[in-house]
Amino acid sequence: NMDAPVLVCAVTLLTTLQMAYFTRRVGYSRLAHKIKPPATTGHPEFERAFRAHQNCVEFYPLFLVSMWSCGVFFSEPIAAAGGLVFIVGRLLYFNGYIRETHKRLPGFWVSVAVFFSLSFLGMIGIVQEILHKYFYIYS
Amino acid sequence: NMDAPVLVCAVTLLTTLQMAYFTRRVGYSRLAHKIKPPATTGHPEFERAFRAHQNCVEFYPLFLVSMWSCGVFFSEPIAAAGGLVFIVGRLLYFNGYIRETHKRLPGFWVSVAVFFSLSFLGMIGIVQEILHKYFYIYS
Amino acid sequence: NMDAPVLVCAVTLLTTLQMAYFTRRVGYSRLAHKIKPPATTGHPEFERAFRAHQNCVEFYPLFLVSMWSCGVFFSEPIAAAGGLVFIVGRLLYFNGYIRETHKRLPGFWVSVAVFFSLSFLGMIGIVQEILHKYFYIYS
Repeated sequence: NMDAPVLVCAVTLLTTLQMAYFTRRVGYSRLAHKIKPPATTGHPEFERAFRAHQNCVEFYPLFLVSMWSCGVFFSEPIAAAGGLVFIVGRLLYFNGYIRETHKRLPGFWVSVAVFFSLSFLGMIGIVQEILHKYFYIYS
Repeated sequence: NMDAPVLVCAVTLLTTLQMAYFTRRVGYSRLAHKIKPPATTGHPEFERAFRAHQNCVEFYPLFLVSMWSCGVFFSEPIAAAGGLVFIVGRLLYFNGYIRETHKRLPGFWVSVAVFFSLSFLGMIGIVQEILHKYFYIYS
Repeated sequence: NMDAPVLVCAVTLLTTLQMAYFTRRVGYSRLAHKIKPPATTGHPEFERAFRAHQNCVEFYPLFLVSMWSCGVFFSEPIAAAGGLVFIVGRLLYFNGYIRETHKRLPGFWVSVAVFFSLSFLGMIGIVQEILHKYFYIYS
């Protein structure tokens, strides 16, 4: 498939594998602290791991939309590079949160910055495309 | 990218920004009621805001699939218009839920109606496309 | 739209309807055990239904990425068939979890096997495509 933005697809698959890895880390934390499903409380470290993962779950579709908007309508390499930075940001976030609640913040801000940057660039590309396709305005 | 359904892409990005806004509102509710992460309980209003957001998180990928199915296989303007109605429905849902649990229902039913309508139209388009592509049947 | 992988689109829409069905089953479990939202605890069976659904919510975007990676870059019929197996796996998982916590495991391993298989095949296709598109290497 020559038309698919393959770099964005590659980074999408990498982020998915990272999400699977985070899920697994929550499972290990369950075992380490002997917290049986369906319980989601019982030890502060497990609770932080659980919440860190939940936050990643909430964020993930939003990140994908921002990366794909930028990748399809603005620039594929910028979108893919942003996605790689997001992966680093989420790793910092996850590891930080498990150590101490406030240590989630540096990675959190990295992810938020990537999300808004890619959304903004994607929005520029989408508005240009709408002007072009429906109003015959070329920028 | 002339082939991408740009109206559906635009509405997808808008729904993502709405989801980011809901996330932020939960964060504000945390601050207002002094509930520190990773806790997710402690004040009824925060608990309603938290659950309203969780429901949006659960619903979001399902909505995206319904809007894209309709947009790619049935009608792009109908899909995009349905997406805008969904945005209004989710705002009613979120604001209603925070005020009182049962006030979430009008917005809930709006979102559910959009989801099933777009899924149904998308399914018609997908079945026609499968008949056409694999069975050489034209409707 | 002749170019969209319509079999993968059809299975995507089916998985979304399955997710809507799981959401509804959690709602029925709320009613059966008289647990009013926003509460998410109160009866072991409801708590298992709730957690089974949450796990499906977490898994869903990851599954979609794996199926689409395989469908676009490796083989559309294999991806769609994998998706149908995933649907069966999730049904086993959900029904098993509600009966007893450890009965979630057979369906869980089916879903995980589908996820990793489709991700692996997708990754092969993506690497070949990158070698081809950016390094002019044909395999």
